[in-house]
Amino acid sequence: MTEQLIKKIAEKNNPTVVGLDPTLEMMPEALRRRMFELYGKTPKAVAEMFIEFNTAIMDAVLDIVPAVKPQIAMYERYGLEGIRAYMETTRLAKEKGFVVIGDIKRGDISSTAEAYAAHLGGVDIDGERFDTWNEDIVTIAPYLGSDGITPFCKRLSDENKGIFVLVVTSNPSSSELQCLISDGKPIYEHMGALVEAWGEPYRSISGYSRVGAVVGATHPEQGALLRRLMPHTFFLLPGYGAQGATGKDIRGMFDKDGGGAIVNSSRGIIAAYKKSARFGEDFALAAREAAIIMQKDLYENVFGGRV
Amino acid sequence: MTEQLIKKIAEKNNPTVVGLDPTLEMMPEALRRRMFELYGKTPKAVAEMFIEFNTAIMDAVLDIVPAVKPQIAMYERYGLEGIRAYMETTRLAKEKGFVVIGDIKRGDISSTAEAYAAHLGGVDIDGERFDTWNEDIVTIAPYLGSDGITPFCKRLSDENKGIFVLVVTSNPSSSELQCLISDGKPIYEHMGALVEAWGEPYRSISGYSRVGAVVGATHPEQGALLRRLMPHTFFLLPGYGAQGATGKDIRGMFDKDGGGAIVNSSRGIIAAYKKSARFGEDFALAAREAAIIMQKDLYENVFGGRV
Repeated sequence: MTEQLIKKIAEKNNPTVVGLDPTLEMMPEALRRRMFELYGKTPKAVAEMFIEFNTAIMDAVLDIVPAVKPQIAMYERYGLEGIRAYMETTRLAKEKGFVVIGDIKRGDISSTAEAYAAHLGGVDIDGERFDTWNEDIVTIAPYLGSDGITPFCKRLSDENKGIFVLVVTSNPSSSELQCLISDGKPIYEHMGALVEAWGEPYRSISGYSRVGAVVGATHPEQGALLRRLMPHTFFLLPGYGAQGATGKDIRGMFDKDGGGAIVNSSRGIIAAYKKSARFGEDFALAAREAAIIMQKDLYENVFGGRV
Repeated sequence: MTEQLIKKIAEKNNPTVVGLDPTLEMMPEALRRRMFELYGKTPKAVAEMFIEFNTAIMDAVLDIVPAVKPQIAMYERYGLEGIRAYMETTRLAKEKGFVVIGDIKRGDISSTAEAYAAHLGGVDIDGERFDTWNEDIVTIAPYLGSDGITPFCKRLSDENKGIFVLVVTSNPSSSELQCLISDGKPIYEHMGALVEAWGEPYRSISGYSRVGAVVGATHPEQGALLRRLMPHTFFLLPGYGAQGATGKDIRGMFDKDGGGAIVNSSRGIIAAYKKSARFGEDFALAAREAAIIMQKDLYENVFGGRV
């Protein structure tokens, strides 16, 4: 699936993934009112808001953005109806042709990780296959080591899927664990080496593996170092935009050909309409403009103007 | 909620939590056939099997076991219907009076962790509260540091809930990350110190905090060391039974009064009927007998026979 992602990035000329992380506060007033009137103040109303909101965002950026990344927590918060909205979002995203990155950060011991691996390709019930998650790639938390990774790996080949394993996260307290020094190197370097090794059997013709890494865009030096240490690992870079990282910060996280990474922006794109009165409630148009500005920033600052 | 858990353990005279981690393979043939006939080979059929199976197990151990711990992955595997079965299990468990530990191992950056915190007490929709998860305590993955913990902490006081943070896990590859040495101490000791510190504001009259730790029962020496280093942290001990740990292995993970920890067994109890032909398909009776044997083992080996 890394190959498809790389191909789509080239097609759109844009290494951007839009984070579909809706909140109730983010919903435009008219949409909110309409759904509350139809369904009451219920999880069902919020689910319908999220589906309509995400659909409009996806349609607005479809020709310029290769991938979307819904964060499952934003949906799980609303229980079963929320998860239905997540699944409907991933289903529509696949139908529209996006690469779908499920930001689920699951991770557990082997038999349990095997159950979570159903996110990538579904589950067999006495010979019948059911895939309700519709994800192409998912994010994985690594605290349990390779036992938590291996069950997903089987899906990489069999189902042509991908994973991104957390190495350095974009949040302020990421250092508490990830920057402890062991054997002269921070934990994230150890994690990086593990991820690069886990990915070895899953490399494609591009040189990149279906086992990727999450590297916070907010850590320029760590990211540049990991780029050198992990030459076959494709990076998902969260933290651009609302979390503070800029095009300049992530320059070193791409390879010499400007490949090897995709940059996520969530609020910076989907809630862009809140930043300027001129959009009114046209959140989709605002998202499209924000995505275009981001593409320009990446080209000017990451690739030296080569749009 | 740690207080309620401690009280329930004393009432039942049994520091055992039953892991409700059903699989399709584990289902008795008659139940399987009946649900497939009613609903076809569908996620709905599996969900109904799991609900009926879990209900019978819970009823069979209700008078001897204080808590249950459904592992959400086993349900999430079956998509929306699976998650419905998880929620119905937690709802029934609460109704029956068990302390409900949701084994969800979520963990993310702050705004996202805030969304996941809805597991503990639900979500507000314009002033209306919806709690569909019904969990009293959830497990948390710590790779992102305190940002991923803090949003849950607010729920500890406001909603009287608890969390168990992963420190040492029970699986073979846990050492890959958790046993790296930093500043003369393994990562799990650093994690243990963080957890003990995070829990400080949430200590109850028992001396134990509402911030607990997951410590794999399969690591006797590490567990005993952590018991000494984390005197205010209540432990959830997975890995007993099917994963190989015995009563003797976990002796050192309890405090001097035999408190401070609860031991999980999943397959060892709920799939006990598969181990002996004499039960036929009476999985509930087999589960009850396995729970009684486990209680005896804990008393003989952990507490020196003081049932």
